[in-house]
Amino acid sequence: MNKSFIIGDEFGVDFIKKVISDAILFKNDIIKIPKHDKSALFLFFNKSLRTRMSFMFAAQQMGMQTVCEDILNLYSFEMENVPMNSDKPEHIKDAARVMSRYADVIGIRNSCFIGGGKLPKNSSVEDVISDKFINIFAKYATSPVINMESDAYHPMQGLALIMSIFEKIPTTSGFESQFSEYNEFERKFDEFKTKKIVLTYAPHTKHLPIATPQSQLLAPAMMGSNVILTCPKGFELSDVCLEKVCKYASSFKIIHNQDEALQGADFVIAKSWLSIDNLTNGNLEESDIYYEKYKNWQLTESKMNLTNNALFSHCLPVRRDVEVTSSVLDSKNSMIIDEAENRMWVQMSLINSLFKS
Amino acid sequence: MNKSFIIGDEFGVDFIKKVISDAILFKNDIIKIPKHDKSALFLFFNKSLRTRMSFMFAAQQMGMQTVCEDILNLYSFEMENVPMNSDKPEHIKDAARVMSRYADVIGIRNSCFIGGGKLPKNSSVEDVISDKFINIFAKYATSPVINMESDAYHPMQGLALIMSIFEKIPTTSGFESQFSEYNEFERKFDEFKTKKIVLTYAPHTKHLPIATPQSQLLAPAMMGSNVILTCPKGFELSDVCLEKVCKYASSFKIIHNQDEALQGADFVIAKSWLSIDNLTNGNLEESDIYYEKYKNWQLTESKMNLTNNALFSHCLPVRRDVEVTSSVLDSKNSMIIDEAENRMWVQMSLINSLFKS
Amino acid sequence: MNKSFIIGDEFGVDFIKKVISDAILFKNDIIKIPKHDKSALFLFFNKSLRTRMSFMFAAQQMGMQTVCEDILNLYSFEMENVPMNSDKPEHIKDAARVMSRYADVIGIRNSCFIGGGKLPKNSSVEDVISDKFINIFAKYATSPVINMESDAYHPMQGLALIMSIFEKIPTTSGFESQFSEYNEFERKFDEFKTKKIVLTYAPHTKHLPIATPQSQLLAPAMMGSNVILTCPKGFELSDVCLEKVCKYASSFKIIHNQDEALQGADFVIAKSWLSIDNLTNGNLEESDIYYEKYKNWQLTESKMNLTNNALFSHCLPVRRDVEVTSSVLDSKNSMIIDEAENRMWVQMSLINSLFKS
Repeated sequence: MNKSFIIGDEFGVDFIKKVISDAILFKNDIIKIPKHDKSALFLFFNKSLRTRMSFMFAAQQMGMQTVCEDILNLYSFEMENVPMNSDKPEHIKDAARVMSRYADVIGIRNSCFIGGGKLPKNSSVEDVISDKFINIFAKYATSPVINMESDAYHPMQGLALIMSIFEKIPTTSGFESQFSEYNEFERKFDEFKTKKIVLTYAPHTKHLPIATPQSQLLAPAMMGSNVILTCPKGFELSDVCLEKVCKYASSFKIIHNQDEALQGADFVIAKSWLSIDNLTNGNLEESDIYYEKYKNWQLTESKMNLTNNALFSHCLPVRRDVEVTSSVLDSKNSMIIDEAENRMWVQMSLINSLFKS
Repeated sequence: MNKSFIIGDEFGVDFIKKVISDAILFKNDIIKIPKHDKSALFLFFNKSLRTRMSFMFAAQQMGMQTVCEDILNLYSFEMENVPMNSDKPEHIKDAARVMSRYADVIGIRNSCFIGGGKLPKNSSVEDVISDKFINIFAKYATSPVINMESDAYHPMQGLALIMSIFEKIPTTSGFESQFSEYNEFERKFDEFKTKKIVLTYAPHTKHLPIATPQSQLLAPAMMGSNVILTCPKGFELSDVCLEKVCKYASSFKIIHNQDEALQGADFVIAKSWLSIDNLTNGNLEESDIYYEKYKNWQLTESKMNLTNNALFSHCLPVRRDVEVTSSVLDSKNSMIIDEAENRMWVQMSLINSLFKS
Repeated sequence: MNKSFIIGDEFGVDFIKKVISDAILFKNDIIKIPKHDKSALFLFFNKSLRTRMSFMFAAQQMGMQTVCEDILNLYSFEMENVPMNSDKPEHIKDAARVMSRYADVIGIRNSCFIGGGKLPKNSSVEDVISDKFINIFAKYATSPVINMESDAYHPMQGLALIMSIFEKIPTTSGFESQFSEYNEFERKFDEFKTKKIVLTYAPHTKHLPIATPQSQLLAPAMMGSNVILTCPKGFELSDVCLEKVCKYASSFKIIHNQDEALQGADFVIAKSWLSIDNLTNGNLEESDIYYEKYKNWQLTESKMNLTNNALFSHCLPVRRDVEVTSSVLDSKNSMIIDEAENRMWVQMSLINSLFKS
């Protein structure tokens, strides 16, 4: 059985709830961090700061053996069944099988778009949206594969987001009550469903990948929330993702008027990404033109005043006073640092759950 | 006493047998993995995927402290006793002595030829064949040095190969018998000597180093097998290596007719490498011309049919349907994934043995 | 409270003495290496060999979780409060706060001058001498920050130097006495104050940073020694540093005549660095001209004969027979390898002290 975690909904909603609940218990030292005499391999085809260190520390805290490979452009794998006389020295099928012998879990970051925005030569949009690379790797791997950001999804960011939201839902009788009985967890997950959660496009000078916003939309949808996407026309993310969001969310709307979308929001997530059209045709505007065109999408304090005193989320890194004003980022309603910390706890909990399932 | 492991025959045949036997016992959980509160440093002057992760996991599983340094081109060491006004910031004698203070064992990968094929400026073939760099390092180091691939040898690949062959030699009465008494190990080592083991040249688009094939020849020779090298004329590997092979093997032949060489083989190892002439004069043919010239050396199913139902070995990475057909690589007789896994076990066992000796 | 260790005198002289004493006790296995179930992050904006491995091994020997990030040029952080539409993807304030959530201690190497010598665009000498980057990082970090070499200081080298000097001060009644009673430590620290310690400029082909010599001067000054700086005119290091040296040292002199300075020295430290003028105006001479101009500053055996049979220190890497003759480096009075080893012990002791304070 393939136990890979690539999109994030592979094992259903209850699995995700368990991952979040455990993460809360580990973070608050209610349950000791579980120990595993097992090994984790983290493969980075793209640079990383937060993901790299949060995964390494998460696994090491569980007593695991850890190796990070910054493959970047040093090495590329053949994915097709062709005579291998190109510049690719190894077939992904051999790499996946060998690495599975060394490591009990394998994290992979492989995105064409990180740092760029252009569809690579000889790739179709379908290849990219379908996360061909990580799926082929997972098919041949005999150890579970964790998606540390692919072209289409960044489920670790999704998990950290919903853990952060969950933490902010008040407990019925003080901080401790959520740990005293499991029912309180259930009650809070029920309350989660009533929340109005808005993902808003933010202006940027670069054309950023769609992986993170897709997971920022899908994860709260999986919790059964009322999810709203607000963005300029043409930035609606992939059909495949939106279908999944519709399937899980209590309600889902796309609203192109940002002010209207923010009305009554309980949680606001700001993020920038490139349009699927841009992704397809590769006609990317210059930095300054692109930024100028959508700069009125910047999230400001006055826009936050339209919400239901909403808490604010951003995945980081954030371009201060470009995507969002510093006043919003540094407000008491900002969850950004807590959410970044939670990356470590959800990843620890996910690895633990994959080993137990 | 210098306890470095550079060629692979430094400590004799019995040492190697002990390394292999222990590796089998660790892998099969018959003996618990030994713990060492010691530190390992792995220095990579060339890129690595398999070697890096298999060494890191091996050492960490023994509870060791581990550091990998990807030196690549960032840093180079002076080897001569000259006023150091060139671009080399540090003398190898100082580096080796300092690193020995930090680390109880030091792995080094330093090969001029990985990724290239050309003799570096100001180097002679003798420098290269004699592994000048790693030998000078080991001379000054006070901790044992392990060769993770030099210009001339890749003894880790040699160890993994003979462990994999050993595993495939049937036990007298079922899987468990080999672990019940030490005599069974001796019996299998005796049977190993009767095997006919063929290393065959394989076509490639690149001019690859000779280190791996030299160790693929030397390691089974050290087990006392009947070793055959088959390759185009001019590809006979270095005299120094061939002399060692002659010294250890029950019998050794070079046969330039591949079909003839494969007759009755028990194990076939395929590998590509550049000729010593090419190494010397640096006149390397273009990829497509080079490949075309020797493409009939590709190992195919019909060639494997000439053997004694031989098991198949390749060190990986392999160019599928260039060096070897996928049908051979994916056949039930292929040991490639097991052998890659065994890299980790032999390296663990070697480090353990170096600490104990 | 900010517990960062950037210049080296933040916690006073007694703190340093405790760090050195503990380091001696750990190294000699008189006190077991303390264990901390905590995490260390090491951020390298410049390449490193010794620092990287000595910190990683030090932390791992204490049972800590460790991650190294070789940021090099991959990533740069915004330090100003401006709209972030430049090429800097993240504000240092966010990075520092997030990393503090992952790591209990953060080592940072960030120097404009390593590998170069030129003041970067848009930076003033004041920015550089004041170590703007690491200080802003430490201001926002909630975990203690350790300076692994900044533009202005390299306090780890300072600590290793004074530990090495301390080791060479004879004990009253044999090796063991220093461990039997704490008073012996005090006595040796008192004797340290009587020593004459000379830092001499050494010729080089490159224009090297001032961080290391500044710490090589400051650290023995903090021990209350008689400190002498000898260098060509114009190479007197920064005023800020010299003021600190004056404040702590029993006596401090700058002597431009090297022979005169070396008379009666107990310890001689050789090091090369660029002049503050060069640092300011960026008019750096070519390698050969620069080297030729100051080559008579090379430390030789005959110069060492002017001293009080002085012990010799160099931080490494050293250009043999350029900065110092091999005869001095390899003499029985050379502490270079011991001092390099001591890097690991002082860093271990420092991390331990930061956790305890």
